[in-house]
Amino acid sequence: MGPDHERKHNFTAGPGVLPLEVLEGLRDDLLLIVGAGAGILEISHRGEHFEKILAEAEARLRALAGIPEDWEILFLPGGASTQFFQVPLSFLTPGKTADYLVTGHWAAKARDEAAALGSVNTAWDGKASGYDHVPRDDEIRLSESPAYVHYTSNNTIYGTRFSRPPRLDVPLVADKSSDMLAGPLDLEGHVLVYASAQKNLGPAGVTLVLIRKDFLETARDDVPSMLRYRLHAEKESRLNTPPVFAIHALGRVLRWIEEQGGLVAMADRNEKKAALVYAALDARPDFYRGLSRPDSRSLMNVCFRAPSPELDRKLVAEAERRGLIGLSGYRDVGGLRASLYNACPMEACEALAGLLLAFGET
Amino acid sequence: MGPDHERKHNFTAGPGVLPLEVLEGLRDDLLLIVGAGAGILEISHRGEHFEKILAEAEARLRALAGIPEDWEILFLPGGASTQFFQVPLSFLTPGKTADYLVTGHWAAKARDEAAALGSVNTAWDGKASGYDHVPRDDEIRLSESPAYVHYTSNNTIYGTRFSRPPRLDVPLVADKSSDMLAGPLDLEGHVLVYASAQKNLGPAGVTLVLIRKDFLETARDDVPSMLRYRLHAEKESRLNTPPVFAIHALGRVLRWIEEQGGLVAMADRNEKKAALVYAALDARPDFYRGLSRPDSRSLMNVCFRAPSPELDRKLVAEAERRGLIGLSGYRDVGGLRASLYNACPMEACEALAGLLLAFGET
Repeated sequence: MGPDHERKHNFTAGPGVLPLEVLEGLRDDLLLIVGAGAGILEISHRGEHFEKILAEAEARLRALAGIPEDWEILFLPGGASTQFFQVPLSFLTPGKTADYLVTGHWAAKARDEAAALGSVNTAWDGKASGYDHVPRDDEIRLSESPAYVHYTSNNTIYGTRFSRPPRLDVPLVADKSSDMLAGPLDLEGHVLVYASAQKNLGPAGVTLVLIRKDFLETARDDVPSMLRYRLHAEKESRLNTPPVFAIHALGRVLRWIEEQGGLVAMADRNEKKAALVYAALDARPDFYRGLSRPDSRSLMNVCFRAPSPELDRKLVAEAERRGLIGLSGYRDVGGLRASLYNACPMEACEALAGLLLAFGET
Repeated sequence: MGPDHERKHNFTAGPGVLPLEVLEGLRDDLLLIVGAGAGILEISHRGEHFEKILAEAEARLRALAGIPEDWEILFLPGGASTQFFQVPLSFLTPGKTADYLVTGHWAAKARDEAAALGSVNTAWDGKASGYDHVPRDDEIRLSESPAYVHYTSNNTIYGTRFSRPPRLDVPLVADKSSDMLAGPLDLEGHVLVYASAQKNLGPAGVTLVLIRKDFLETARDDVPSMLRYRLHAEKESRLNTPPVFAIHALGRVLRWIEEQGGLVAMADRNEKKAALVYAALDARPDFYRGLSRPDSRSLMNVCFRAPSPELDRKLVAEAERRGLIGLSGYRDVGGLRASLYNACPMEACEALAGLLLAFGET
């Protein structure tokens, strides 16, 4: 059993690391859900066992994140990329305009999908500054009476985040794919929040969608069944066969978060983890360059460069030699990226910080 | 470890039983993909390990099912229900008509989703006879020059199937969700074939879509990115983060089918399994009533009733006492349904046939 047979410190941007306890639980569930006579992949999505899994996941999420009863919780397929068009298809009806804050690659994708379906206003665009920060509220130029304002709370590629949601007095739609449940959920001003699971919530294959019920009531219904939020809500996320395993795994992750002390404890851990890695980078300002401005630094994705692409590659290779994997930056951007999602332990961050301080010094 | 801790003979209609060898392999993969430093849920969909998983699944499927190189193989999210609208959205362009063979509940759903998007002709409808059979070719009333003819090769709720595809000299689109890879794949006359995974192919969460490349070229591109077949093909099923685990599990199922001797061996086994169960029903014609006409009998779903709903319930309960689960019929139809997918072993069918012969006789 050499190093090929060991789990490493995993900094991959997503699908990302999951808690070992969750994986061990899932391993048992594959062969048997106790009382079901079959494993988690082999039970009916309408039977009592999945019924319970779904109800528990919803209840646990509602309690953990403080989601009020006037919000629907949906578990949908198709990833955040499906939400990119399902949101405008449903809510950007003729005569309306939706506003988009373009803080990075995925935010731009979301804006572009909406622009193909209706009238869109880019209320802020960070492209000129290399997406190195997110806007202050007073820098955002809203259209008159937008149907909603879409923003991306954490930007994985450039390593920026909104440290709190914008306060704009208009209905907010948030893509929280990369920082959902990394800390307390602030729903103030929001009408819809979505997050694909594969960063903080579980495996790829399910997208969490939260919608305020009065906003849901305004969704268009003259679209294909699978794109109707209302129908998914009526059918309790079982309009068709849902991704049973991904939902079950998400439920196990929620339980793990609860056991860790909940979302305040998560935020505390995540702040400490990120602070450690940023401190190592900041200790060598002539060597490392962060992609994000300090006031916009992400706690989830620390994006930076060594002085040259060659040194970037050497650093990634040295990290792998030490058992630290997944540190290459996004393919179009280069550099390095350390993703410190909920399940990334402090020890991994300590090992990374140690490497960052030592690399190239001898 | 009582009966709650045992795997039973699982006849659930779907998500259905999977081979034990596949589950055992997946169990190991959850904690570690050898050489990846992480489990299957935690690796990048763009990294070398998933790259290999995807390429192997595609190559194995192509070889097993004899899919020519001029067909694309896609692994998509959203289930067959997403194909119900993605197919007409892409190919039922203004001025064209698509024809639908309505042989059951899901075939009607597919027709209805298409009818909301374009001009549809119901070329055959089995509703009047309780969907107890599928049409002969000469009973189908096609429109003039249809864009395609959609049919459902196996109908899970009523237990019917096309024993061979219709021969109609028009482009065929097949929903093969419930009999894909139950035997050799006959693509003659087809332009698109889709199948959600959760019957014969793997866990819920991925849909296999096969498209002939010249037909793919005619797909509409002025639709949201996630609905463009061409883009999914260009991006090799990784337009966004795909359902990594479900695709990997599907790959393991393909390997299992190969190890069992391939699709001819599968067909042979499936015919023997179904014959055994039907023989037990036919041995007591005054007691059991099949939902399907003998000439349309499904090999995958054996649907029948005892003389009364009360006896149906007693039979399901007696089956459960013997460790045979998942035998209740579809909620709107009642009766019993035994789903005999690829992974359902002969022993399960023997146990069921024995029960059917003995039930209520003493």
